[in-house]
Amino acid sequence: MLLVYGGGSIKRNGAYDDVTAALREAVNEVIELSGVTPNPRLDKVFEGVNLVREHGVNLILAVGGGSVIDCAKFISLGSGLGEDEDLWYDYVETGKPAPENLVPLGVVLTTAVTGSEMGGVAVLTNWARNRKLGYTSFPLTPKFSVLDPTYLLTLPAEQTTYGFVDMFCHTCEQYFSLPSDDNLSDEMAEAIQRHILRSWRACRRHPRSYEARSNAMWDSTFALNRVISRGKEEDWVTHGIEHALSAYFDISHGAGLAVVHPHWMKYVYTSRPEATARFARWAVNVWGVDSTGKSEREVAEEGIEHYVDFLRLVGAPLTLSEVGIPADPATLDKLADHAGDVGGSYRRITRDDARAILALCVTPVVF
Amino acid sequence: MLLVYGGGSIKRNGAYDDVTAALREAVNEVIELSGVTPNPRLDKVFEGVNLVREHGVNLILAVGGGSVIDCAKFISLGSGLGEDEDLWYDYVETGKPAPENLVPLGVVLTTAVTGSEMGGVAVLTNWARNRKLGYTSFPLTPKFSVLDPTYLLTLPAEQTTYGFVDMFCHTCEQYFSLPSDDNLSDEMAEAIQRHILRSWRACRRHPRSYEARSNAMWDSTFALNRVISRGKEEDWVTHGIEHALSAYFDISHGAGLAVVHPHWMKYVYTSRPEATARFARWAVNVWGVDSTGKSEREVAEEGIEHYVDFLRLVGAPLTLSEVGIPADPATLDKLADHAGDVGGSYRRITRDDARAILALCVTPVVF
Repeated sequence: MLLVYGGGSIKRNGAYDDVTAALREAVNEVIELSGVTPNPRLDKVFEGVNLVREHGVNLILAVGGGSVIDCAKFISLGSGLGEDEDLWYDYVETGKPAPENLVPLGVVLTTAVTGSEMGGVAVLTNWARNRKLGYTSFPLTPKFSVLDPTYLLTLPAEQTTYGFVDMFCHTCEQYFSLPSDDNLSDEMAEAIQRHILRSWRACRRHPRSYEARSNAMWDSTFALNRVISRGKEEDWVTHGIEHALSAYFDISHGAGLAVVHPHWMKYVYTSRPEATARFARWAVNVWGVDSTGKSEREVAEEGIEHYVDFLRLVGAPLTLSEVGIPADPATLDKLADHAGDVGGSYRRITRDDARAILALCVTPVVF
Repeated sequence: MLLVYGGGSIKRNGAYDDVTAALREAVNEVIELSGVTPNPRLDKVFEGVNLVREHGVNLILAVGGGSVIDCAKFISLGSGLGEDEDLWYDYVETGKPAPENLVPLGVVLTTAVTGSEMGGVAVLTNWARNRKLGYTSFPLTPKFSVLDPTYLLTLPAEQTTYGFVDMFCHTCEQYFSLPSDDNLSDEMAEAIQRHILRSWRACRRHPRSYEARSNAMWDSTFALNRVISRGKEEDWVTHGIEHALSAYFDISHGAGLAVVHPHWMKYVYTSRPEATARFARWAVNVWGVDSTGKSEREVAEEGIEHYVDFLRLVGAPLTLSEVGIPADPATLDKLADHAGDVGGSYRRITRDDARAILALCVTPVVF
């Protein structure tokens, strides 16, 4: 068995001791791969693949948060490839489906952010090429995930906060997309969003509350286990642009999202009637905006203002300079080139649109 | 392969033709077991078990609604039992967990009611003993379920309506239970309930709308795939009492629920502060009750009134006499004896409580 984890946090929060004690009774040989970093790197994946092959590993256990889980997913994938196949070029860059019957993956979750514990999504950074890409394939789904909120009780405030920012963004990137059917997914997305806002407040007031932390953990899972993307096109433009930021600058993913997301909203909310209507609905249902006597557009703007205020309140950055990224033309070009043609649902975001959005990120969103 | 279905409906809605055409290319031998009835019977299960053993069946495919799926689940379970084990006495009555590695079950769903397509729950009626019991065990979970809303386009109005009544009741029996944490499950339950009310209206206006029917199908799955029961005690008293009704009288399950459910609500809503608070929250969040200037109890009552009005609107029965069940003392005793000690979360419902609730079912709920 291969035990994959990051730095020392799982030794502080008790997960490492719990897991190794349980494994001592159940497993003959436990190989450890530690030192997985945020924005996990390709070289760490290869280190894991070599261990799997060398020791004939038949189970990979990821103990940690999204980065550790994603690294373990790619180790599982890499171990299942033939000699002539390249993990990065043949799979991550092309999106080619993973083979079946990979070395199975289990998870013991110690953060509340990515939802990677329930699904086949994983993100990998190739620092040699300054590329950070998401990859999705069903065989990467963990066979089991243990969600024990006690491991969150000691999570630092900043990590907790960025977890909420990230999971909120995840729900939005499914919710703000076509079609605008009367879709259960949308109703559930709003439910999760309202609950995330309450969970954030509960975790701030009572960081050692089991109830608050358990809600945070479950919120994050449902924000991205794809229940709320059923029947939706989805729109991952904000994540696409943020991945450009954190491919060149080693910033927190949540911080990058907070900078980009409201600007994307302002860029698209009048792009078509469905978009304006949806932002207005969101303003009422999630932020409690009173729409009486206001135009749909005004209601939509008020909703986005509420969101920016929330990000400001939790202490998230709202501009590139706040995360230490210069907004000079050369940097913006480089970032836009990385983002490339990002796609999108309400409005297709080209490389030039991405550059325009990044150029807006020098000031907070105002209307 | 064993193909399990009910009467002629899957031949009218196209599911039978689609499935058999697909199977012709993929499967050597298809054994058919038809004639599964609503409130499926034990003898039909044994007929299926014999077919599985005789033909060495390695896949059971249920094509139909909850009754067909549940019958197929019990065929799968029965086929996996040893000679000395009794399906009814050793498993259904005791709740003993099913063995692993049962003959796998697949589903092609043609109704929107029970949620049995996603989970290990199944209901069986033993007419020889006038017993109708629910049984839950993970190995009964289908390996796959195909949810194609086109099979709902020809569903008769009455069946459609009782489907909505049943799924709405399912969400309530998870939602109206302790604890009263700030639980994502509750927020999602309310989302599903609001959506069910809209879906009912959409299906009435546009019975042949793919969008309306797809929403109904997804609503029913999420009403009982146990996503919204995470962190909840649940309270299946209404189903418990209704099962007594349909064990003795061959009435529609949805009709029985409509009779019992509001009376159960009235019986428990002041049983403890958490109950009153929850019914009041429900009134506001699901029924749009304006709570200004009203006591919590008044708001709760207004919510239950809204629910009764909804049942009245859709044409569901509200009293025992409307479903042809006499309310004489002997019948009430017999039904209460069957229901027995039903359990419950806000208030424990004993056999005598069940009888008291049934005695209330002679008139619609009023406050």
